[in-house]
Amino acid sequence: MERKRTKSESLRNLPSSNWSMMEHQLPHTVALLSRTPAALDALLRDLPETWTFRNEGENTWSVFDVVGHLIHGERTDWMPRVKMVLEFGETRTFVPFDRWGHVEESRGKSLTQLLDEFARLRSQNLAELRASNLRPEDLERHGRHPALGVVTLSELLATWAAHDLTHLHQISRVMAYQYREAVGPWKNYLGVLQCTGHSSP
Amino acid sequence: MERKRTKSESLRNLPSSNWSMMEHQLPHTVALLSRTPAALDALLRDLPETWTFRNEGENTWSVFDVVGHLIHGERTDWMPRVKMVLEFGETRTFVPFDRWGHVEESRGKSLTQLLDEFARLRSQNLAELRASNLRPEDLERHGRHPALGVVTLSELLATWAAHDLTHLHQISRVMAYQYREAVGPWKNYLGVLQCTGHSSP
Repeated sequence: MERKRTKSESLRNLPSSNWSMMEHQLPHTVALLSRTPAALDALLRDLPETWTFRNEGENTWSVFDVVGHLIHGERTDWMPRVKMVLEFGETRTFVPFDRWGHVEESRGKSLTQLLDEFARLRSQNLAELRASNLRPEDLERHGRHPALGVVTLSELLATWAAHDLTHLHQISRVMAYQYREAVGPWKNYLGVLQCTGHSSP
Repeated sequence: MERKRTKSESLRNLPSSNWSMMEHQLPHTVALLSRTPAALDALLRDLPETWTFRNEGENTWSVFDVVGHLIHGERTDWMPRVKMVLEFGETRTFVPFDRWGHVEESRGKSLTQLLDEFARLRSQNLAELRASNLRPEDLERHGRHPALGVVTLSELLATWAAHDLTHLHQISRVMAYQYREAVGPWKNYLGVLQCTGHSSP
């Protein structure tokens, strides 16, 4: 007699490439989150300010702004929301994230200070995440996003990692933009100079 | 009596942000080129293979492929072309770069090996670049690109740096792609998942 297959059994019957793409794996997320500060540090520390303090035009961010934004996320977005899901589920709505909240916080600081601060906060937050000993079933718990509605803890954690990547993507684009004239006719060969994948405000 | 202003004097009268964007500065290029291997190492070494061996679909590159491509550029593209400009000017055409040349070279190697190799070759190439003691007037020397025609040494060197950035941009996009389902409804907020700025083949 055939019984109804569970969702995870169905997924196992998909080709492995499809299966894994849909699957969020917490250790992979943590592996990435733990590397971002050192990667940004290796790329950016003591780099000439042409690379780090210029932006793409009015109302756009420099590399300095992006690192400030990542710090603001560590303070107010990711772990506070994880804790809210675990404590209140979908009965409480996340505090909306302020995309310009870093401006005041970063004022008067150097990029070196921001890189140190990001590394320290990320490390603290990952220690806290590990200490919460999430079980697989916890990842299915629901939270409530002010615009997106019900989301899962799994989606929130995967987004934390993808958010690092979207800003690494932005950093490389903002930096390349400073050389858009300097590269002369190679301009058309460099995909980064044609990127339109900007994050929404 | 008014005399005709030279190009560089006119540039100095532009707002400083415009002036420097057009100007290629060799020390800035070298500062970036020297940091890329350590940045990739900090991001990628020992990262789970979900992040580094998956691509964006048929005929696209994984992170492993991209690092192989950067190695191939160190061997056959950048410094060989710099030397050709200095030695032959525009009388000799650059050897066309093989965008799939890394496939054979990378076969059977681990990502760790590729990261080590990239760091070693980049370091050698930058030592050679420094040893060539380029003067400002050398940067105006001409070379001949097989498709783009006459280019300057300045454009070639600026492109070397921007090429690192286009592949850092690609790496962050390829990695984020692996989580495009895992992030659930946040998908639309993440610019990296809407990026169409791919480099031309």
